[in-house]
Amino acid sequence: MTTHDPRTRHARRHAEAREDPEYVRAFEQASREVALTQSLLKALDAVRELRGLSKQDLAGLVGRPPSSIRRLFGRASTPNPELRTVMAMLDAFDASIVIRVGEAPETDSLDFGRVQVQSDKKSARE
Amino acid sequence: MTTHDPRTRHARRHAEAREDPEYVRAFEQASREVALTQSLLKALDAVRELRGLSKQDLAGLVGRPPSSIRRLFGRASTPNPELRTVMAMLDAFDASIVIRVGEAPETDSLDFGRVQVQSDKKSARE
Repeated sequence: MTTHDPRTRHARRHAEAREDPEYVRAFEQASREVALTQSLLKALDAVRELRGLSKQDLAGLVGRPPSSIRRLFGRASTPNPELRTVMAMLDAFDASIVIRVGEAPETDSLDFGRVQVQSDKKSARE
Repeated sequence: MTTHDPRTRHARRHAEAREDPEYVRAFEQASREVALTQSLLKALDAVRELRGLSKQDLAGLVGRPPSSIRRLFGRASTPNPELRTVMAMLDAFDASIVIRVGEAPETDSLDFGRVQVQSDKKSARE
């Protein structure tokens, strides 16, 4: 005999889903993607301020509508710009990118112009 | 009296455009954006190989269709993925990102979790 579950159908489904490893994995993965995307946008916004540029200035420099630049750095939504827009901003900031991979046995550094790949061996901090 | 210009209309327009500083600026800016985007994708592809992952493996890890991952790393087109897709790949590679700004007088390093901003002062190499 099954006992009656007093929770709503929605709450039951949610509880069941949380016990499904595949669901949990996908949920956690999506959360990390969103968090990383937001971290990158926060970092870009910090570089913008470092460079003394208003959002309006930046929009002019990258040839994008000021409204779309404001939206990228707004707090309300979870923006997801095209990579090329991100690269346009890095270009405007005269910045470069390093992709750091934890332990990459054979490779110290790979150079793709203003984008580099570094393993922790070479760039280990004091 | 104007002399007849023997070039085609298209060639004349193109030549005129090349003398328009605004056109030249926009053209050069677009070229840099495309080149930077391609550099980043090449770097990601190199990290994928470093991690010993096939494109199919990576597609599985980030939960994207294999065809779209293949397209990103293909040579023919100029792909322009969403930032979140790029971040999903970095997450799958267990990599982090450093944005390096040339000379940033007051700031040595800003930390946004797996995204950091560094000025050249701190990370000056040997």
